Amino acid sequence: METCKKIGELLCSLREKNPLIHNITNYVTVNDCANITLAIGASPVMADDINEVKDMVSLASSLILNIGTLNKRTVESMIEAGKRANELNIPIILDPVGAGATKYRTENANRIIDEIKLSVVRGNISEIKTLYGLETQTKGVDASEPISSSRDELTEIKEIARNFAKKFNTICAITGATDIITDGKTIYSVTNGHKIMSKITGTGCMCTSLIGSYLGAADNYLLAALSGIVSMGIAGEKAFEKMNKNDEGTGSFKTYLIDSIYKLSKEEIIQRGKVYEE
Amino acid sequence: METCKKIGELLCSLREKNPLIHNITNYVTVNDCANITLAIGASPVMADDINEVKDMVSLASSLILNIGTLNKRTVESMIEAGKRANELNIPIILDPVGAGATKYRTENANRIIDEIKLSVVRGNISEIKTLYGLETQTKGVDASEPISSSRDELTEIKEIARNFAKKFNTICAITGATDIITDGKTIYSVTNGHKIMSKITGTGCMCTSLIGSYLGAADNYLLAALSGIVSMGIAGEKAFEKMNKNDEGTGSFKTYLIDSIYKLSKEEIIQRGKVYEE
Amino acid sequence: METCKKIGELLCSLREKNPLIHNITNYVTVNDCANITLAIGASPVMADDINEVKDMVSLASSLILNIGTLNKRTVESMIEAGKRANELNIPIILDPVGAGATKYRTENANRIIDEIKLSVVRGNISEIKTLYGLETQTKGVDASEPISSSRDELTEIKEIARNFAKKFNTICAITGATDIITDGKTIYSVTNGHKIMSKITGTGCMCTSLIGSYLGAADNYLLAALSGIVSMGIAGEKAFEKMNKNDEGTGSFKTYLIDSIYKLSKEEIIQRGKVYEE
Repeated sequence: METCKKIGELLCSLREKNPLIHNITNYVTVNDCANITLAIGASPVMADDINEVKDMVSLASSLILNIGTLNKRTVESMIEAGKRANELNIPIILDPVGAGATKYRTENANRIIDEIKLSVVRGNISEIKTLYGLETQTKGVDASEPISSSRDELTEIKEIARNFAKKFNTICAITGATDIITDGKTIYSVTNGHKIMSKITGTGCMCTSLIGSYLGAADNYLLAALSGIVSMGIAGEKAFEKMNKNDEGTGSFKTYLIDSIYKLSKEEIIQRGKVYEE
Repeated sequence: METCKKIGELLCSLREKNPLIHNITNYVTVNDCANITLAIGASPVMADDINEVKDMVSLASSLILNIGTLNKRTVESMIEAGKRANELNIPIILDPVGAGATKYRTENANRIIDEIKLSVVRGNISEIKTLYGLETQTKGVDASEPISSSRDELTEIKEIARNFAKKFNTICAITGATDIITDGKTIYSVTNGHKIMSKITGTGCMCTSLIGSYLGAADNYLLAALSGIVSMGIAGEKAFEKMNKNDEGTGSFKTYLIDSIYKLSKEEIIQRGKVYEE
Repeated sequence: METCKKIGELLCSLREKNPLIHNITNYVTVNDCANITLAIGASPVMADDINEVKDMVSLASSLILNIGTLNKRTVESMIEAGKRANELNIPIILDPVGAGATKYRTENANRIIDEIKLSVVRGNISEIKTLYGLETQTKGVDASEPISSSRDELTEIKEIARNFAKKFNTICAITGATDIITDGKTIYSVTNGHKIMSKITGTGCMCTSLIGSYLGAADNYLLAALSGIVSMGIAGEKAFEKMNKNDEGTGSFKTYLIDSIYKLSKEEIIQRGKVYEE
C-alpha cells in the first residue's frame, strides 16, 4: 500500500513536470510509444540521426534505447546519444528487444551495455538471460520461456534479475506473468496485467516508454521502473475488462490501453496495484 | 462449403501452431501488419538489417517481403533473407506494392521474382500486370484499373493470374472487387470484402500478412493464399457493418477490422465465405 | 461564412478529384497521416528512396515534406523530389518538425527553404521563429512558447507570419490556440480546435497532410492551407466531444479524429468554422 502510494505520487509529479523523453526506437511500435508517453503525461521526441542525437538528448530528461528494428545506422546513434546522456547524468533505459534471437541483436545489446551506463534494463526472461550469458530459447522477439511461472521458476527468475542488476550495476526489470524489478538488493514482484497484452504488438515497448517517462521525473530509478510496470499492468487489466464487456477484440484493446493510461490516477494505483516487496 | 470448411480448419491449426512470421516491410502499415498477424494467431517479427535477416528467417515459418517503402538497404536484405528461406524451404510471399508506379519499384520487384523462388505473389491488377510485362496504369500504390469489374474484365484478370502463376511458378493472388487466386491450374474467385477497405491504408499489406500467417501453418500454399484473402474479406464486411451501424468513420473501421480477425472463427468462415472454384 | 462556404466547396472538389499526395515523412506518425489523407478524400503515397522520388512526385498532385525523423538519406530525397516538383509546378508543403530543437533540424529546414520553392510552410510558433531567424525556445518537437496567447502575443505572431510569408514568398501557417494563415497580405485567424489535440502525437503532421491534400485539389493555395487547418480544428472538436461524452481517453480520441475527417461535410464546415479575415 505504502509503495503504491509512492507510485501514485510519482505519477502526479510526472504530470506536473511533463518531462521530455528522447527515444531511439523501432518503426513498428513507435507511434504507440509516443502516444502512451503523452497519455502518461510526458513529451516524447523521436530522433535517430547521428548528427542530432547528442543535441536532442541534451534537452531531454531521459533517454530510451529500443533495439526492436536496429540497424547499423541507428546503433551508432544509440551509442552516441547514450554517451552524451551519461556525461549529463540523464537516466537511460534499454529495451533489448529480441536479444538472443539473432547474433546481431545479442552483440549490439551487449555492446550498448558495455559502453553505456544504463539506469534500467527491461526485457523478457529470454532477453535478460541472453544478456547475462545464460542459455535460453528465443522465438523471434517474444519470450519462449513459459509465460506463467511455477514457484520454482519464479525463484530462478528473481535470482537472475538480482545477479543481472549486480553484474551490470543497473536496475533489472523482467516482465512476464509476474514482473520482477530489482536493483540487486530490494526485489519487487508485480502481478498486475493480463495475458491478452501479448496479443497486441508493443506492450513491452510501451512498458519501457512508461518507465522512461517516470525516469524523466524521478530521482529514485527503482521506483520509476516499478511505477512504469505497475501502470502498464493496471492499464492492461482495465482495457481487457472493457474489451471483454463489449465483446470486442485486440484492435479495441489497444485503444483502451492508451485510454486507461490517460485516465490513470493515484487512487487507482493505490486501489489496484499488486506489488510485493522482499 | 467444403473449401470454406478447409479454410476454417486451417485457421484452427494456425492458432494451435502459432507460427513465427518474419517480415521485411514498409514503415507505413507495419504496426497494423504486426497486430493483424497476432490477431489471426501467428507471431510477427520485423527485422531488416542485412546482418541479421538470415538468422531471423531461419527461425521463422514463413517470410513476407513487402516493398511499400523499399530502399537500397532493405532490398538487399530482402534478397538475402529470401535466398536463405529458399535454402530452408520456408515459404515466401511477395507484396509488390506500387510496382509500375516507378521504374525503381518495378525493377526491384522483378529482381526479387528473378532471384527468389516465391510461394505466393499478392497484388492488385496494376501491380500484377506490370510484373507480367503488360502495359498498365498505376496511380501511386493503388490500382488504377477499375475496381468493380465487368464479366469480360474478370475473365481477363483470371487469364493474367493463370499465366502469371505458370510463368513464375508461383501462386498468384489478385485482390480487387472480386479476388482471384490461382496456382495456374485451379482458380478460386472470392467476393467477400467491402469497398470501404480501400479507404484505410494497409488493407492490401494486412491481407498479405494474413496469407503469410497461413503459409506458416500450411502445407497447401494455395489454400493458405485463399484463406488469407477470405479471412480479410469477411473481417472487412464485419467491420463495415459495425462502423455503419454506429455511424462512425474509417478510424473506427480500422479498429473493428483487427477486432474481427481476432474474433474470426471456423463457423463464421463456413457461414460467410464466398468462394467459387473453377 | 463566405469563406467557410468556399472551404466546403473545396472539400467537395477534393473528394471528386481524389488527388495523389506524395509524402516524404517521418516514421512516427506516417500511418495516421496516410489514414487522414484517405479520410479527407485524397490518396497518399509514401516513397523516400532517392532512386524513385522524382518518378513518384511526377505522378502526384502535391508533395509533403516532413522532417520529423529526418536523416541524411531522406533529406537528399526531399531535395530531389522538391526540385522535380518545382519543375512541374506541383505545390509543396514543408512541415519543419522540431526546427530549433537541434542545429541539424534547423540547418536542414533552412536548406529546404533555400533550395525549394514552397507553396506552404506549416509549423508551430517556435519552428517558424527559428526559420525566420528569431530567438526562440523549443522543447523537442513541440512548441515551448505559450499555447494560449494574449492579444499582444497574437499580434506578434501575426506579424511574424506575415513577414515570414513575404521573406520566403510562401504561405505561412502557424498553428496554436489560434491558428494564423497568411500569404503576406491577407491574414486569416482560426479558433477551431481543442487543447487535447496536443495529447496525441501527430496532430501537427496530420494537419499538414490535410493541407497537402487540399493543395492537390486547389488552385488557390491560401484557401487550401486555410481549409486544412479549419478541417483539422473542427475534427478535433468533434472528437473531443465524443471522447468526453463516453468518458474515454486519448486512444479513443485519435480514432474519433480520423472518423470526424471521414464524416466531415460542407455543411459542418459552414456551421462550425471559426474563421476571421483581416
